[in-house]
Amino acid sequence: MTPASTDLPAPLKALVGRADDALARVLPGEELPPADLHKAMRYAVLGGGKRLRPLLVYAAGHALGCDGTILDAPACAVEVIHAYSLVHDDLPAMDDDDLRRGRPTCHVVFGEAMAILAGDALQALAFEILAISNDDDDDDPRQRIAMLRTLGAACGAEGMAGGQAFDLSAVGRRLSLDELERMHAYKTGALIRASVRLGALAAGCVDDATLERLDRYGHAVGLAFQVRDDILDVEGESAVIGKTAGKDAAADKPTFPSIIGLDASRARLKTLVEDALDAIAPLGERGEWLAELAHYAARRQH
Amino acid sequence: MTPASTDLPAPLKALVGRADDALARVLPGEELPPADLHKAMRYAVLGGGKRLRPLLVYAAGHALGCDGTILDAPACAVEVIHAYSLVHDDLPAMDDDDLRRGRPTCHVVFGEAMAILAGDALQALAFEILAISNDDDDDDPRQRIAMLRTLGAACGAEGMAGGQAFDLSAVGRRLSLDELERMHAYKTGALIRASVRLGALAAGCVDDATLERLDRYGHAVGLAFQVRDDILDVEGESAVIGKTAGKDAAADKPTFPSIIGLDASRARLKTLVEDALDAIAPLGERGEWLAELAHYAARRQH
Repeated sequence: MTPASTDLPAPLKALVGRADDALARVLPGEELPPADLHKAMRYAVLGGGKRLRPLLVYAAGHALGCDGTILDAPACAVEVIHAYSLVHDDLPAMDDDDLRRGRPTCHVVFGEAMAILAGDALQALAFEILAISNDDDDDDPRQRIAMLRTLGAACGAEGMAGGQAFDLSAVGRRLSLDELERMHAYKTGALIRASVRLGALAAGCVDDATLERLDRYGHAVGLAFQVRDDILDVEGESAVIGKTAGKDAAADKPTFPSIIGLDASRARLKTLVEDALDAIAPLGERGEWLAELAHYAARRQH
Repeated sequence: MTPASTDLPAPLKALVGRADDALARVLPGEELPPADLHKAMRYAVLGGGKRLRPLLVYAAGHALGCDGTILDAPACAVEVIHAYSLVHDDLPAMDDDDLRRGRPTCHVVFGEAMAILAGDALQALAFEILAISNDDDDDDPRQRIAMLRTLGAACGAEGMAGGQAFDLSAVGRRLSLDELERMHAYKTGALIRASVRLGALAAGCVDDATLERLDRYGHAVGLAFQVRDDILDVEGESAVIGKTAGKDAAADKPTFPSIIGLDASRARLKTLVEDALDAIAPLGERGEWLAELAHYAARRQH
């Protein structure tokens, strides 16, 4: 596999820029009080990142015939949630990480108390972004409520926070493949699935069959992303992955390779991408960005 | 002042029970996985408490002619937010408190990582509660979006989390009265004002003048609650207030008595209650519960 094949195509690269610009606009300014909190929030969100979740929002909207600015709010909301989860994950009481994307983590720069608050304020901001309608009166408010409900469920005890709790209780314990997949389905899968669904809801989709297909796609892509993460952690010793290779094994964290082996993990990854592509096949050509993102989740080098 | 005069009247006491029941229903069950997280969430919310914020939701709804179950969702949402904020406030990196309402704090019982997650999951739950409509199709979805926007703004960097950030930077520093009032307007005032507004919005209120009057009431009651808190901390040495008296002074926290003195604090409290009552006077008899709560905020013994 050549590095070129892991690159995003130009339209998706452009959407990374669009998401970055939208995020910079919705975050509170550093010159406004409480300035320290605003600085910590901007530091946590605007420090780069793949912007996979906003891309999924835009790609799902595009697949349903919508490319409008109405997608910017859900794109920002899911990334702001993702950023808050990283800030809290990195805290000394959680994973105790000092580095993230090559920079000192939020609590290293701003202190632990401010990092907790920045994460808390970011979560609230995500819901506020979704609740502030900047659209005209033709906007369907019930669709917006469905988006808020989707985000709430994805973040809570039956979503991302629940996955973190499963993760806490899994360290040092031998998990079955089912348990590992459930943990990831909650921990990272819920927000990834929500990103796809939010794009569809923002595009006005009310067709349950389509939403279910997209949910199947989101589930497969979320899991593929995680399997790839685990494979990179093993393969990474001789490659440039931008973080410490073998970190999961050292921390005694359960991974796909540690439970089913490297070859079976690669095979699982292939099946997941096929699942994802199969789920969106009925969308035809407009599903091309979603297809690109499924490949990207499985092939990325970092 | 006799203890009897600080008691809540029977209808409001009954509403405390109604809020407790509604909270027990919306929290995830302890028997469901992830059980530890669910236990921590229930422990944080169901451990007693004055339920002032739910009472304000019910009282504001009542003042506008609504006593229906539609008020239960916002009543639960604001209390769940309040509970999450206490869990995070008590963390070692924040106030480092071991006791709350006479019981060990959440992180003492469940560990620091689980307490962070429980707080995070509770915040998400609050928004989810508000977004899940259990009402018939006559429910106005735009009103519900306004409620979600109100809650988001009250919790974020321009609300409760922002107030915590002001608080962090205030310890050991001499604040002016204006700075102290701004900190409290954010830290506790924003959620108290939101509680009143949510009750009004749930009752279907779309009249800006009424909402502004209620906002003035909420602002005054929020501040009165805090002034009373500071006075209790000073007076408490010879009284039973249920927590360590003189704690604020020992922690070098700025308080109303430390900045303007005890007599001026008592005078300020009186003015605030008058402000609150004046703001709701046009509501007439239906505003009686709101009036009771203004008196209660100023007279409570713990």
